[in-house]
Amino acid sequence: MPQPFDFYFDFSSPYGYLASVQIEDLAASLGRRVNWHPILLGPMFKETGALPPVNVPLKADYAEKDFARSAALFDIPYRHPKEFPINTIAAARVAHCLTQEDMALAAKFCKQTYVAFFADNQDIRDLEVLRSQLQSVGADAEAVLNQIQTDEVKQALKLAINDAMSRGVFGSPFVFFDDEPFWGFDRLPHIRLWAQQQGKVA
Amino acid sequence: MPQPFDFYFDFSSPYGYLASVQIEDLAASLGRRVNWHPILLGPMFKETGALPPVNVPLKADYAEKDFARSAALFDIPYRHPKEFPINTIAAARVAHCLTQEDMALAAKFCKQTYVAFFADNQDIRDLEVLRSQLQSVGADAEAVLNQIQTDEVKQALKLAINDAMSRGVFGSPFVFFDDEPFWGFDRLPHIRLWAQQQGKVA
Repeated sequence: MPQPFDFYFDFSSPYGYLASVQIEDLAASLGRRVNWHPILLGPMFKETGALPPVNVPLKADYAEKDFARSAALFDIPYRHPKEFPINTIAAARVAHCLTQEDMALAAKFCKQTYVAFFADNQDIRDLEVLRSQLQSVGADAEAVLNQIQTDEVKQALKLAINDAMSRGVFGSPFVFFDDEPFWGFDRLPHIRLWAQQQGKVA
Repeated sequence: MPQPFDFYFDFSSPYGYLASVQIEDLAASLGRRVNWHPILLGPMFKETGALPPVNVPLKADYAEKDFARSAALFDIPYRHPKEFPINTIAAARVAHCLTQEDMALAAKFCKQTYVAFFADNQDIRDLEVLRSQLQSVGADAEAVLNQIQTDEVKQALKLAINDAMSRGVFGSPFVFFDDEPFWGFDRLPHIRLWAQQQGKVA
């Protein structure tokens, strides 16, 4: 069985959202499935000293333009969120719980929650928004929302983020394809080229 | 006459090098020429608080891998320079002088000097290396190497970099296509998509 893509993303990352729309088709075209890994950029930016592009002079205007333009170029619905960036720890905990139980369900939740934030201007910090996302993908919303309050789940997400960092993840989206690392929505075409050149096309 | 591409680059920028190999074909395919604008990232990074990726923990290993891999994926010769990044002010001044006199000659010099640094492991800080680059493109090496010692040229490059920053340039490579800004080697495919969607294909 070929190794799935490991797809790391923060729900507050616009390029993570764009990648979430394409990652499954790309993986499938290369004979792979996708393991979804919700992470938080906060602890990673602490490590790298990076700032979100929208907080950097000169870069901020370009960044917002590029989010929307990249989406348009690839026919992906996009409305820049009213509040941005936001703390996405609740959504990440929910997604983490789902990945532990049912990856297909988790994938559905992640894709939908990204759309809610980056196309429908919903506040995904709001537990009621997360509840309705959970319900609409057919998860046991009540159970999951209880789980994310537990120390066990809080700790598990932290550990998962540390594991990601140990593996070299420092941004979103970040993909491993047979342990080869690719950072950024703009690297998705590189993944296909790399697969072709390495003879990894299924 | 359609507006040329404005192509901004630092000679120490690997992605600038990769873009220098493709920019003229891309522009030509869209019915455009290229104006080459040598800049220095130093003053820009001061403004944005950015660090070269190779100086950032976690990012450094990935960055070096991605330079070489991106080159390989697009069939561009690449050998990571022994010393990197380096101060490219002399090369930038030379290139700036040439752009003021003969853009075609400047383009040749820029492409060749990039190859010298990123494929042939030459030290482009060395005035003798720059002299031989100038000679090989048929420029008056002596005259140009004298010019770059003058306050006039030093000042002119500074002004050009300030103009670039006023226009929104904060990295390398940076391209304007009809005043639409694109940052990064990975945005070259976006330029073509954008041109198509805006009906700008010649």
